[in-house]
Amino acid sequence: MMRELWSDCIRSIEPYRPGEQPQIGQIIKLNTNENPYPPSPAVIDALREAANESLRLYPDPEGMVLKQTIADIYNVSQENVFLGNGSDEVLAHTFLGLLKHDLPILFPDITYSFYPVYCALYNISYQTVALDEHFQVNVEDYGQPNGGIVLSNPNAPTGSALSPALLRYLIEHSRDSVVVIDEAYVDFGAETALPMVKEFSNVLIIQTLSKSRSLAGLRVGFAIGDRNLIEALNLVKNCFNSYPLGRLALAGAEAALKDRNYFEKTRQQIIKSRDLLAEELVSLGFHVVPSKANFLFVKHGSCSAREILQQLRQRKIVVRHFPQPRIIEYLRISIGTPEECAELVRALQEILG
Amino acid sequence: MMRELWSDCIRSIEPYRPGEQPQIGQIIKLNTNENPYPPSPAVIDALREAANESLRLYPDPEGMVLKQTIADIYNVSQENVFLGNGSDEVLAHTFLGLLKHDLPILFPDITYSFYPVYCALYNISYQTVALDEHFQVNVEDYGQPNGGIVLSNPNAPTGSALSPALLRYLIEHSRDSVVVIDEAYVDFGAETALPMVKEFSNVLIIQTLSKSRSLAGLRVGFAIGDRNLIEALNLVKNCFNSYPLGRLALAGAEAALKDRNYFEKTRQQIIKSRDLLAEELVSLGFHVVPSKANFLFVKHGSCSAREILQQLRQRKIVVRHFPQPRIIEYLRISIGTPEECAELVRALQEILG
Repeated sequence: MMRELWSDCIRSIEPYRPGEQPQIGQIIKLNTNENPYPPSPAVIDALREAANESLRLYPDPEGMVLKQTIADIYNVSQENVFLGNGSDEVLAHTFLGLLKHDLPILFPDITYSFYPVYCALYNISYQTVALDEHFQVNVEDYGQPNGGIVLSNPNAPTGSALSPALLRYLIEHSRDSVVVIDEAYVDFGAETALPMVKEFSNVLIIQTLSKSRSLAGLRVGFAIGDRNLIEALNLVKNCFNSYPLGRLALAGAEAALKDRNYFEKTRQQIIKSRDLLAEELVSLGFHVVPSKANFLFVKHGSCSAREILQQLRQRKIVVRHFPQPRIIEYLRISIGTPEECAELVRALQEILG
Repeated sequence: MMRELWSDCIRSIEPYRPGEQPQIGQIIKLNTNENPYPPSPAVIDALREAANESLRLYPDPEGMVLKQTIADIYNVSQENVFLGNGSDEVLAHTFLGLLKHDLPILFPDITYSFYPVYCALYNISYQTVALDEHFQVNVEDYGQPNGGIVLSNPNAPTGSALSPALLRYLIEHSRDSVVVIDEAYVDFGAETALPMVKEFSNVLIIQTLSKSRSLAGLRVGFAIGDRNLIEALNLVKNCFNSYPLGRLALAGAEAALKDRNYFEKTRQQIIKSRDLLAEELVSLGFHVVPSKANFLFVKHGSCSAREILQQLRQRKIVVRHFPQPRIIEYLRISIGTPEECAELVRALQEILG
């Protein structure tokens, strides 16, 4: 391929590779941490209602109604809320607007693999900090001078959560840096750092509706933080795309956030299924990293990850494997319905037994 | 505001400011070039059908079905098509991936005011080239060494279109640069440069569904160009957001593009309304720039733009004014329904005399 016409800055970057969205029918899809339950019926109703003539008009560029809904639920002001086209877009704007400094930013060696890609895209220097042998964050390791800190909590792909006390320690000792807490999976049992937003002006919390609200297909994410941080994100957004969220995304997200009962019911079911599946996997000889997310990160005592991956695939069960140092023997398994989890366990019994 | 935590690169940029989306009821909104007609009924049907349980799943990150639909309609291959969250996102990725070079890029002094904002965001050097006194592009002026050329055709906010012969001349004489033709308004009577994509590997055409498909509220834009250019855009996209288009955007866009009859009918009606309104404005003492877009760019012989703007607003008619050199006495008026155009003419008759 001739690349003469490309900008220099993109010539040598490696993109993020999302988990596959297989087109084969009748598979059990446990590879991209989607919610096994459909979105709230209130979301479907809201979307069908919003699919009307007003689509000819631009949406509210600020998404004020949705911002206010989020502000009300999380007990902040709408000036503390930023909206994006999925939390990946929110992260991208955060990296460019708040994390590009002379000093390198810090994040774990094993975490969401999109972080180094943003750094490459925007020419941001970074340094990874090794998780300990149990894949836990040691907050003391983040004491070095830095341009910012990014932690996924619970972490992906491990599922490990950091306690609020340790997070607080880290934030208190990093007052000169923005600390980004990527809480994509927080609703499945970890404790959110949201209350710290009022106390510390350097914390930015990022969440998504893709996981706990079953809306990966709608594309809505948001950030909550001090007004100063949100103002920076608004500036980047207004230099990139005035209208990142369409009318349907705004309407669907609002309905999803307002249906608290459905949210509680489905996330509790997923937590229950996760804890049961973890026990069953342990009894099948797996090492299971304690998880507060909607997935399990597991390694078998004797059978290789690649072998299990392949054998599961033959049985039309798709899980995720990350071919990178330290975790090459691990598989990440999204939590499905109880039936899907049972199907997985049956398949593993066959494969291992 | 304290800005210590912001990245240096965003401290002094000025964002793009979109036309307002007034919340007052019963206005005649002729300020942001939205289509006065609703989207095709087929779009509404497709969206209501797509508002289903599958929203829990990520969309196809490549949007292959929609790409193939666009490829079929425009007689190219799907490898020549790039999709984005509105054409503003497509433009943003284009600026970063194809227009960031040592030499400055060139675009007219009077054009879409988002272009210099992208340059500021990505630290791209640019130089504006003055339109002539009739607001026309002189293609000879783009012969100087450059890092790329961006032309909106028809141009915004003037509505002037460049002939294919002149565009061809410009592209032929700029083989070492990417020439971006922003065809957001092309369906209202200008000639598309799409056939040149097969002939020249340096041309990128950008279009949107916001205007001629009445879908400003859905957020779908696309680019068509040589595979090498599209590959660069895919790379930037995959370093930014794996899933820029949700399931509803993909489904709605496909239905919109497939309903050719509705598209033809509504765009012809807008062209007819525009040409009639232009005549009426001339007879009211306006200078009207010949337009091939869904708006008119007009200046009155004796009454100031600000005065007309304000008086129209009192009558609940909103049009757009750009307070910048050379065009401060002009107003940009989007083409409404025949009834809205008639209402505008009545209001102007009152105001002017």
